[in-house]
Amino acid sequence: MASAAVIGVGITPFGKYQEQTLVEMAVQAAYEALKDSGLRPGQIEGGFFANALANRLFGDGTIGQNVFWEIGLNKIPVVNLENACTSGSTAFYLAYNAVAAGQAEAVIVAGAEKMWVPDFGLINSGESELETQLGLVAPASFALRAVRHMLEYGTTIEQLARVAVKNRSHAQKNPRAFFQKPITLEEVLAAPLIVDPLTRLQCCPIADGAAALILASPALAEKIGRAVPVRAAVLCTGSYENPQDLARWETDYRGCRLAYEQAGIGPEDLDLVECHDAFTIAEILHYEALGLCPPGEGGRLVSEGATELGGRIPVNVSGGLLSRGHPVAATGVAQIVEIVTQLRREAGPRQVPGARIGLAHCMGGDKAGDTKSFTAVVLGG
Amino acid sequence: MASAAVIGVGITPFGKYQEQTLVEMAVQAAYEALKDSGLRPGQIEGGFFANALANRLFGDGTIGQNVFWEIGLNKIPVVNLENACTSGSTAFYLAYNAVAAGQAEAVIVAGAEKMWVPDFGLINSGESELETQLGLVAPASFALRAVRHMLEYGTTIEQLARVAVKNRSHAQKNPRAFFQKPITLEEVLAAPLIVDPLTRLQCCPIADGAAALILASPALAEKIGRAVPVRAAVLCTGSYENPQDLARWETDYRGCRLAYEQAGIGPEDLDLVECHDAFTIAEILHYEALGLCPPGEGGRLVSEGATELGGRIPVNVSGGLLSRGHPVAATGVAQIVEIVTQLRREAGPRQVPGARIGLAHCMGGDKAGDTKSFTAVVLGG
Repeated sequence: MASAAVIGVGITPFGKYQEQTLVEMAVQAAYEALKDSGLRPGQIEGGFFANALANRLFGDGTIGQNVFWEIGLNKIPVVNLENACTSGSTAFYLAYNAVAAGQAEAVIVAGAEKMWVPDFGLINSGESELETQLGLVAPASFALRAVRHMLEYGTTIEQLARVAVKNRSHAQKNPRAFFQKPITLEEVLAAPLIVDPLTRLQCCPIADGAAALILASPALAEKIGRAVPVRAAVLCTGSYENPQDLARWETDYRGCRLAYEQAGIGPEDLDLVECHDAFTIAEILHYEALGLCPPGEGGRLVSEGATELGGRIPVNVSGGLLSRGHPVAATGVAQIVEIVTQLRREAGPRQVPGARIGLAHCMGGDKAGDTKSFTAVVLGG
Repeated sequence: MASAAVIGVGITPFGKYQEQTLVEMAVQAAYEALKDSGLRPGQIEGGFFANALANRLFGDGTIGQNVFWEIGLNKIPVVNLENACTSGSTAFYLAYNAVAAGQAEAVIVAGAEKMWVPDFGLINSGESELETQLGLVAPASFALRAVRHMLEYGTTIEQLARVAVKNRSHAQKNPRAFFQKPITLEEVLAAPLIVDPLTRLQCCPIADGAAALILASPALAEKIGRAVPVRAAVLCTGSYENPQDLARWETDYRGCRLAYEQAGIGPEDLDLVECHDAFTIAEILHYEALGLCPPGEGGRLVSEGATELGGRIPVNVSGGLLSRGHPVAATGVAQIVEIVTQLRREAGPRQVPGARIGLAHCMGGDKAGDTKSFTAVVLGG
């Protein structure tokens, strides 16, 4: 039984918005979510704000207080979360725990990131780690995984590229996605090589953007209506494994398993998934961790069209990180916003017909090696 | 009735430790806390890590995962918190909520900060806010409050200075405090003026340091022994008020009131307090919010010696931020560590005789104006 429900969502367009500040974007999404919920500001009892990079890029911290104050929420506990690419979903996890525990009747969750700044350099997660300094930056780490998957399971570069083509075709139907121009398999393969075998179109772009939502207790949600129940919210932190298995993250499998247990469902019950396609290979690895197909068959799953809109289990109908864009701390919230929008049957041309249950899946971490966080949130039903 | 208890504490010396990294300090405190609790790593079910400045100073984020991994905690949910000077106490607040809700049997909380770095510049909270840019940096904002308090209540500069002398005399009894050399009233008054009437010895120093603790469910705590029950954990975010009353933060009063309500006690039941003496005037304002004396009488309270070790209600027997030092995100946890140490009667020469109930109080925020967070944690009894 759900212990909380999402009763309002808001999201800005993702992309390059140099004229907007981080706070402005976050306020826009938060205001939209509050308005969508129909609640008055005084009914919100807590705020969870996620941001990963502003302290570093602008020297700004403690942003949530300012964002929520701007929409009239000024006497509530506010916390600021950072958990790399899982910042937004970690904020959701804590917010869900607070509502599920009866510690609040309604809370707001927002995630925002501003990355297109004039002096933006390369940001490496785990920059101060030895292995990163030695060259194992994020694209390299994922490229190694891709090569390993190809070796072990015969996955092809065309299958990898298919992920990018599919998510771009989804993004064409999402007016808030960063990249909406269609791309072909040939274009993905011919794009500049970042780390062999990953071309530029197989790596997600940085972006500016914000997303927000309102979580409420089941009792309040019932009064409000249009609520989407939360069936599971899981956060797992990974471990180094020795020897590392580059074709799977053990923690990813564990996180997904826990989410299914908590939700009382299996992968066969899902109608759609938003997953953390930071690189094309990542989406394929996540298919397997999520149990959408057996280990090793992720490449085939995408090339057969099963994860396209209209397929057996559509993945990243929003466009995903690859085409909607990846404003780090906004992503985890945006994925949940997409699932909620779909389950409310409000997704327009990208609507998954009959969508009842969806899963939002995120991965983030500081080590190029393996100390990563994984989150999985199951909604609907 | 308490819903969680502190069963282990750890803290590093606070000061200038340029040869130690942030992670090393945090690991030292976390390991000490784990060892002190007697739990095995496998019994810890969640990690809450607080840091405010590393992303900006070193480009490091998502630090908690690495810290907790180093002490053998590698398959638990880990979150990274930032809430300015209340970062550490916010981590505690969320950890307490998780245990109190039955979401975990035992969790670890750690706060760490490294500020003595070669290229450390002035860090202003709210640096990107207009009022800060116009000159209302933190010491100026507190100086205005001091002047207002002097005007309204006849508080004297000698009374302000007494706070610094008192906390330094406490720090002499704390081997982990940054500044242990005694100071006189004359020295405090003759120190270089930062913002009239605050001299340098009335402003807390930056510092390196880390603190950690283990929180457990009442059932587990009973098995372990040496547990200090948590009676309240409150986080409030402030609001702009117009006109602002510079001699009181409304949110501070509200946070303290909520903490007393949650704990089922009044200020008269407290045996000691650790409070956020970032500036001498702050301690006086907090006396009043905490109800240790009526509004306006904070200056007299300190000059009468009531808040000294041996007085009616000792405040900041650790040395406080002024003399123990203020490694931002470590402070909130360090205050709780001090209260626990006192309630376990393990504080050595600075022990408050017969201490049964203590309160840890923190304030932090990004706006020089008034959007601040206040936390209050009541322990013991």
